[in-house]
Amino acid sequence: MAQRQMKLGFMMHGNGTGWGDWRHPDAQPGASTDFAYYRRQAQIAEAARFDFLFVADSVHITPKSSPHYLNRFEPLTILSALAAVTDHIGLVGTLTVSYAEPFNVARQFASLDQLSGGRAGWNVVTSWLEGSARNYSREKHYDHATRYRLAAEHLDVVQGLWDSWEDDALVHDKASGRFFDPDKLHRLDHRGDFFQVEGPLNIARSPQGQPVIFQAGASEDGRDFAAARSDAIFVQPGDLAGAQAYYADVKRRAAGFGRDPDTLFVLPGLRPVIGSTEAEAERKYQAFTGLTSIEDALLIMARSFNEHDFSQYDLDAPFPDVAHVAANSNRSTSERIIALARAENLTLRQTAQRFATPRTDFIGTPEQVADAFGRWFTGRGADGFVFNNSLPDELSVFADTVVPILQARGLFRTEYEGTTFRDSLGLAKPANRNTTRRLAAE
Amino acid sequence: MAQRQMKLGFMMHGNGTGWGDWRHPDAQPGASTDFAYYRRQAQIAEAARFDFLFVADSVHITPKSSPHYLNRFEPLTILSALAAVTDHIGLVGTLTVSYAEPFNVARQFASLDQLSGGRAGWNVVTSWLEGSARNYSREKHYDHATRYRLAAEHLDVVQGLWDSWEDDALVHDKASGRFFDPDKLHRLDHRGDFFQVEGPLNIARSPQGQPVIFQAGASEDGRDFAAARSDAIFVQPGDLAGAQAYYADVKRRAAGFGRDPDTLFVLPGLRPVIGSTEAEAERKYQAFTGLTSIEDALLIMARSFNEHDFSQYDLDAPFPDVAHVAANSNRSTSERIIALARAENLTLRQTAQRFATPRTDFIGTPEQVADAFGRWFTGRGADGFVFNNSLPDELSVFADTVVPILQARGLFRTEYEGTTFRDSLGLAKPANRNTTRRLAAE
Ligand SMILES: Cc1cc2nc3c(=O)[nH]c(=O)nc-3n(C[C@H](O)[C@H](O)[C@H](O)COP(=O)(O)O)c2cc1C
Ligand SMILES: Cc1cc2nc3c(=O)[nH]c(=O)nc-3n(C[C@H](O)[C@H](O)[C@H](O)COP(=O)(O)O)c2cc1C
Repeated sequence: MAQRQMKLGFMMHGNGTGWGDWRHPDAQPGASTDFAYYRRQAQIAEAARFDFLFVADSVHITPKSSPHYLNRFEPLTILSALAAVTDHIGLVGTLTVSYAEPFNVARQFASLDQLSGGRAGWNVVTSWLEGSARNYSREKHYDHATRYRLAAEHLDVVQGLWDSWEDDALVHDKASGRFFDPDKLHRLDHRGDFFQVEGPLNIARSPQGQPVIFQAGASEDGRDFAAARSDAIFVQPGDLAGAQAYYADVKRRAAGFGRDPDTLFVLPGLRPVIGSTEAEAERKYQAFTGLTSIEDALLIMARSFNEHDFSQYDLDAPFPDVAHVAANSNRSTSERIIALARAENLTLRQTAQRFATPRTDFIGTPEQVADAFGRWFTGRGADGFVFNNSLPDELSVFADTVVPILQARGLFRTEYEGTTFRDSLGLAKPANRNTTRRLAAE
Repeated sequence: MAQRQMKLGFMMHGNGTGWGDWRHPDAQPGASTDFAYYRRQAQIAEAARFDFLFVADSVHITPKSSPHYLNRFEPLTILSALAAVTDHIGLVGTLTVSYAEPFNVARQFASLDQLSGGRAGWNVVTSWLEGSARNYSREKHYDHATRYRLAAEHLDVVQGLWDSWEDDALVHDKASGRFFDPDKLHRLDHRGDFFQVEGPLNIARSPQGQPVIFQAGASEDGRDFAAARSDAIFVQPGDLAGAQAYYADVKRRAAGFGRDPDTLFVLPGLRPVIGSTEAEAERKYQAFTGLTSIEDALLIMARSFNEHDFSQYDLDAPFPDVAHVAANSNRSTSERIIALARAENLTLRQTAQRFATPRTDFIGTPEQVADAFGRWFTGRGADGFVFNNSLPDELSVFADTVVPILQARGLFRTEYEGTTFRDSLGLAKPANRNTTRRLAAE
């Protein structure tokens, strides 16, 4: 059997995520809407044989939002542009089920999938910011449980629409004038609690059949949803033990849903800091950390607590009792923060700093960082990683120094396996449900 | 004063519009989802100095839909991909206000505008197909008058969101940690009949300030909406007299709304057929016409009559009385068809053929076609044209033979005037309403 190899994604964030990266001397603060910047990074990632580019998203800002939320590209448009200047790398976009019509979502991802030759992926999120509702003519954001019920139905509709056309439905017979075979074009006729969608979709399946599904749910409902429905899970674990526990849990859930757990990839997001020596890596790490003021750290943490105002508390008193404010927000992260503060008896200041600028296993020389990747991967804390550092040179340094080590160890590919994103992931093209049904009936 | 010059757009349709183009010997029937095909055509149009690419749209199909509706790219995604492989040409996408959230619409066009360096345009449509509602969890399509009220409010919201960030709001001061000036970021706080949207938008203005607005309304309500709100009107007139009447009418309406009528461009869509001799042009025209069966012609016409089933009538009897079925559909076109049939006492067969494969002024040698362009343009039937023939070679033939004549006559540009779409159109960058308001208050 071929050696198991890790999957690598690159988080495209322009001017960085929440560490105050935009203030780094190397940073280009306007990068989040600079197409040339995105193109360059996409091409570096592709040259290094990354599996995919990942674009996060949110649909509500306030003057207190982190810089990387304030001004940035919308995922489907930037990924479509990147499709035109890349050939192999997967293109994963985040889109919330709470505020987009399934027919539009299905079409846009199918269109990205077609124009990229089968490289699209959808990170299905439910949106964690209460304010989002106010940008969409709604009084209130759906509660957490409802969001996951809606997400399941939304995904049913989207995936159903993606199968509207059987793979050989378009016959294009000029002589007879038969453009397609009407027996192979299918309405969906979905009638559910949240959506009623007739179909069919007005775009055919791509070479990979359907876009790849990502998910980042972390609560009980979220884990079940991810284990049942996604091809890849994007997580943000604190340490290897936490990663292993999460990994084992979602793989077990996947098996429980009758799936082969190896077709579900668990991919922690992380921020390696690479130096030619340990001392240089440490200097770089301190430089990053120093960019995040305590005020920023409080705001970053607040995003997992429904934008709660932490500035009202004494910074050097024990972490305040705020479990209630996160009930309908990003619960898994907020629970992790509260547990950390309790376990180590941290003050508010210490908790915020630990959350906003965590010290991780991935700081050191290329060898050390490659070792850490290998440890997490072979130790079943991860099936791969999402590299999350947008500074101009950090991706190149990783590509030039760590990737070759991983390749030499047989832990990462040296060539793309095929042309589609599913080819890279080793996932089969899914059968079209309508073909299956039609053949069964025949 | 510089000579008035015509604007040229190219309608991107992959495998063509309704003439059965996909059956033409030169046609590639899969072109509508072939990115390489779109890229090639976009680059030919840009090399010929076209003002813009135009992507039409619809959100409902049935097995009876024309081939070019059945399987095609979604506009925002394909235009974003084309933005990455072009530098000057405008990128105009059709998107219906009836079935897309204004916050999402504003974001996606703003994102396209940013990544293209200020080249986006939005063709604001209300959707004319009753079935659309059934893809969006709605029982019924909005009635015609409501659609235009909704369109006006939707556009208010979108344009308001596009001004969320004043042009100098992002200060990016690394030393002080000031990413932006909060006084220059504005909520919208829209509360209307159809939408309640708080804002602000999470993407800054592009170099052209706001995307260009296209419209194709043709009814009374539609003309008023277009004259009041759009920068360009896309029309499908039958002949020069009809074009002139429409032109005069909407320019008068624009003046009535207090606008300079020269900032509103009336752009008929047309399908030149160019031959090196008249006889060759005629042969090409007959070849096109012959591709459309009478059954196809009925279906094409039916799109303006709410997908009415015309096959139930005697083909050689007078055109049936069907005014009622089109009341809530594409009324201006259906009324024109009915009027034509009455005026010339046509049978159903004759009417359908005339509508599906019209003989126009634009069939002939390059000189003759250039003459016709000039006649319509200087005769104030048009401010420019949208070239609507997707066959592989027709755009190149036009670019190589007709464009140079128009340029030699001073009727069309030889170089782009600037970098944005507004630069090409000679339209000023709109002032940001929030800047204006803030300065007035200061
Ligand atoms: C690494 C990671 C990245 C995420 N990215 C996004 C994102 O870009 N947009 C978003 O709305 N939510 C994002 N989320 C939030 C998840 O979609 C989900 O709401 C969150 O993990 C809370 O999980 P739960 O809803 O199961 O409690 C992300 C979560 C994680 C762990
Ligand atoms: C040349 C032309 C192109 C049009 N393209 C589209 C289109 O791509 N999508 C769409 O939904 N409607 C399209 N329309 C329809 C118009 O948006 C509008 O609904 C139609 O002209 C009827 O006008 P009225 O609603 O004012 O009666 C087009 C109309 C014309 C004249």
